[in-house]
Order: sequence, then C-alpha cells, then structure tokens
Amino acid sequence: MKKVAIGIDIGGTNTVLGIVDKEGKVISESSIPTKTHPDYTIYMTALVEAVNTLLDPVRGDVEVVGMGVGAPNGNYYNGTIEFAPNLKFKGVVPVVDFLRQKFDYPHIILTNDANAAAIGEMIYGGARGMKHFIMITLGTGVGSGIVVNGEMVYGHDGFAGEIGHTIVDPNGRECGCGRNGCLETYTSAPGIKRTVFELLATMTDPSELRNISFNELSAKRIDEAARKGDAIALEAFDYTGEVLGLKLADAVAHTSPEAFFLFGGLANAGELIFEPVRHYLEENVLNIYKNKVKVLPSELPASDAAVLGASALVWKEKGSDNQ
Amino acid sequence: MKKVAIGIDIGGTNTVLGIVDKEGKVISESSIPTKTHPDYTIYMTALVEAVNTLLDPVRGDVEVVGMGVGAPNGNYYNGTIEFAPNLKFKGVVPVVDFLRQKFDYPHIILTNDANAAAIGEMIYGGARGMKHFIMITLGTGVGSGIVVNGEMVYGHDGFAGEIGHTIVDPNGRECGCGRNGCLETYTSAPGIKRTVFELLATMTDPSELRNISFNELSAKRIDEAARKGDAIALEAFDYTGEVLGLKLADAVAHTSPEAFFLFGGLANAGELIFEPVRHYLEENVLNIYKNKVKVLPSELPASDAAVLGASALVWKEKGSDNQ
Repeated sequence: MKKVAIGIDIGGTNTVLGIVDKEGKVISESSIPTKTHPDYTIYMTALVEAVNTLLDPVRGDVEVVGMGVGAPNGNYYNGTIEFAPNLKFKGVVPVVDFLRQKFDYPHIILTNDANAAAIGEMIYGGARGMKHFIMITLGTGVGSGIVVNGEMVYGHDGFAGEIGHTIVDPNGRECGCGRNGCLETYTSAPGIKRTVFELLATMTDPSELRNISFNELSAKRIDEAARKGDAIALEAFDYTGEVLGLKLADAVAHTSPEAFFLFGGLANAGELIFEPVRHYLEENVLNIYKNKVKVLPSELPASDAAVLGASALVWKEKGSDNQ
Repeated sequence: MKKVAIGIDIGGTNTVLGIVDKEGKVISESSIPTKTHPDYTIYMTALVEAVNTLLDPVRGDVEVVGMGVGAPNGNYYNGTIEFAPNLKFKGVVPVVDFLRQKFDYPHIILTNDANAAAIGEMIYGGARGMKHFIMITLGTGVGSGIVVNGEMVYGHDGFAGEIGHTIVDPNGRECGCGRNGCLETYTSAPGIKRTVFELLATMTDPSELRNISFNELSAKRIDEAARKGDAIALEAFDYTGEVLGLKLADAVAHTSPEAFFLFGGLANAGELIFEPVRHYLEENVLNIYKNKVKVLPSELPASDAAVLGASALVWKEKGSDNQ
C-alpha cells in the first residue's frame, strides 16, 4: 500500500487539507472555513469529519503514516495553538491531543506555518540535502523557520524562529504585535504598501500609484507599476530589499545558514525583490560571511505549499525515528 | 589514572594553557606570549613545547583525553584560525593539523573563544542541563556562543554565533570590522567608553568623568563612578543595557533560549548592567517570549574561564561519542 501523510494548514480564513505522498504529490485536497468556528471543539469536529471525508475514497489504497498541522502560533512541543492573534478561538487550543483521540496514526505533529514551510522546503524543495538554512515567508505577515544541523530550531519553548518580529527600528512603524518597528511592518505585503505611502510623501516623482487610495493599493499593483518603470514602486522594492537584507545579515550572524529561501506573495516579484535583498545582505554581512550565503526562491509550488509543508512534518519525524 | 583535558586559549597578547579534570579543576596552568611569534610555525612549536613542559610533572598520574583550543576566528570544522584581525599571523592557520602531528590524543578540537566559553558554561557552569542558551562575552569585543538542542551552533561554515556583529544602527559607530553600528561598538568595554563621551557632550550634569581623557578612561573607572551615583556613568550603563536588551530580544526571536549568560569585564559590573539588560530585553521581546528568558551571570571563575572553556570542548566531544 502507498504510504501517505495528511497535511493540514490552518489559516485565518480557511483550513486546507490534503493527502500527500512521500514525493510531494498531492493526491487529493479539500478545505473548510476556519473563521466560522469560534469554539474550537466545533471547529475541530468539523476538521476531523473533513479528514475522514477526504480519506474515504482512498482508504483501501493508502497507509496513513501520520498527520502534520501547520498553524499560526503553533507550538511543536505542546501540540497546541497558543494565543494566535488572527484566529477566532482564543487562548490555548490542544489540537494534537484532540486529533489523537480521533486518529491513531504514529505521528501527529503541529508546528507554526513558517516552520512547516521550512520542513516542506527540506523534504520536497530546494533545501533537500541542506543542513543549515532559513525559510522566510513574505505574506500578510513575515514568518521564518530556522534549520540547524538538519533539524528545525524550536528553542526552549517551541516558539523559536520569529525573524519577522526582530526589530528594525524601536521607534519605527506600529506592528500588530503591539511593538514598533518589527521587520514584518516593512517587508510583508502590507509593509511594502506602507513604504509606498511614505515615498509618495517624500518623493516628487509622478507615479500611477498617486491615484490609488491606501485601502485600494495592493502589493500586486506595486509589482505591476514597478515592471512599467514607476519610480516610486521601484524605490519601494529597493527599500524593502534594503530592510530585509539588513535583518538577514543579522540572521547570518546567528546561525550562519547556507541559504535563505524566500516564499510568499512578495517573493513572487522575482528579481524586483531578490536583487536588492542579495545586494543589501552582502553590503551588511560581516566579512567572514561574504559571498557565501545564497538567497533563493522557494521551490514549493505556491498553490500547494501550505499543505505540502504540513505533510512534510510527518516525513521529517518519521525520518528521525529511523536514524 | 585520572582523566584530564588540556585547554588552550589563544589570545591577542598571551596564550594560556592548563590541565583540567572533568569537574573543572585546573591542575596546572602556564602561558606563553602570542604576539612575539608572527610566523605561526615558530609560535606553534613554542606552544607544543609549553604543553609538554606542563605535562612533564604529571605524566605518570593522568590520562590526557584530548586538547581543546579557543581562539579568535577559530573554525570548528576546519580546525583553523582564519583571518583573525587581532593576531599577528595572517591568513589561515592550520592549528589542529599541526597539533595532530605532535600529539595522538583522540580529541583535538578548536573553536572560537566565545563558543569555548559557552561550552565551558555548559560543562562546568550555570548552563549545566540547559538545552538552549546563549553565552555573551562582553570584553574588548562582544562575542557569543549559541547552543540549540544541547549542541553548539557552528552553522554552514563554522562561524555561526557573531551576535556582537549584528547591527544596531547601519549609520552608527565605526566598528573594527569595517562596518558601522555593530552591537560590539556599544556594549564592549570600549563601547561604554564611547557612550560616556557621547553623554558628556549631550548631557550637562557634572561628572568626575569630565576630568578624564578618552585614552585614560576605562570601563572600570565608569563602574566606580556609577557606584558613587555619577549621573553620566549611570546613564551610560542604562544605555548599554538598552542596546544589549534590544539585540538580545532579536536573538530570542531566532533561537528562543532558556537563558543568556553574560561574561567578561562589563558583566562584572553586576546589577549596574544586568538590571537594564533585563528591563530592556523584556520591553523589546515579542509577547510570546515575555517573562521566560533568564539573564544570568556566567558561573565560570573569571581567572580560569578561557582555559576551562577550551578544555570543556574535549569533554563535550567525548560526551557526544558516547551517545
């Protein structure tokens, strides 16, 4: 029987789940809304039902090795989601304990979504064979997953790897976390939008972005304007790369990775973002690290990345068992 | 026979070597000058002779398990010192290869001095039993050693753990590394001196430090003035703690340690430095990490710390063999 893992990605709006084989092929996929379930037991019951519905057509053909869950503020050690600001259920949600009561798979694992993406990159993507790398997810927020010696860094409390909340400027932009100047406020999709509005104020160049309100502007529109040579949009990408390059140089001084992988909306801008990130990383990195660290696009397909990452948790854990 | 390790600390001025037992007792110690040997083969030959001289009186009583070397810009993977700015021999010095030709101990290991201090803390000091912690050495420079899952983080190239060269302000103070605004330029012994001179310019408070030239001022004098209530000296310690607390908050967002251990000249100032570091670390750390991370003084005796750290490399490596 074909061995498969179930990957579950819990997002603020939807939860996507899929059955994935060891080569990273998504055999089937479905989703349920996350937001409509403020009580986690109702939500978790719906999730269990969705898993069973997904499995029903293939039960005779596959052996489920385990279940991996990626979630915001996911804690690997406790198998819980803890105080996630963008989920409706509050406090500590014992996801893994709940799933263990319903399924007897050998591996049921949870971690935060960026860590899951990192493990996805390690199992299926461009980080195969790498022992030291860092995944950076550039979406609505900025997440990160740090791998050292081939192992995910979870830290003392299970919450390691929040490079999106390292501080660029303690007197800088207000962050959703309650502090000021976090990397996320500059290099996320909303971050580059904030940069554009700052530049519209400080620069005098004409720009098509001067016709768009803050609420209407999107990272995609900034990308389109930059490709047409819009000076404000180009400067916004350069500044975003400058801030990211500076903080990635700090990250190198911590764990000295072989590569950074960039994933998510902003990473799709291609060289518009990679070129300045590489430039400013090299400019800011300590001399012993110069010309050593690669900045690469994630090789996970954007459409399935979250489910792939979550399912990869299972293969990673299974691999550790066999060592 | 009593099992012992030889610890060697290569400093810019002197090289200290000692015979250390597994409990961290220094059985005997000696030193040779580092600076007088610009050619590394002459220096290494003198070092080998010094090791043999140290061993001669105890040869019948001890079994040498190995030799650990701490050195600036020491590379664990290659066993080399690479382009150390404060040592006279230039380029890449193959220390471990040289020692292996002269001694046939099962373990001959080299790493940078701050990593050696971290392993010393783990084997003999306050980090015994801790899986995740960071050692910060506050001396002429600022070094660091990061431990994750009970293992030293060496990174892709062997040079991980240079938190002293994370950037506080890219337009900040000139650093010996050629860049601007490194943590080291604020929180080393010369760094607090630079802060005092900035404060003497910006503040109007009377201060005994107004009578001392830049070249005459030392961290010790600032410490003494602070204990007498000198406003400038007190503000200098507060600012030093503010900058260190801010960057340690970033370090928490990377590897989420259980504790930081502070070691070296500035750490000897006690609560003058620990109180503001703890305060600003808590102020700057992401909410999920609040009230979790300890900031502790190193428990290594200052006089023997370097040799203890170097010798601890041997016990650590031996321990890994037995796993």
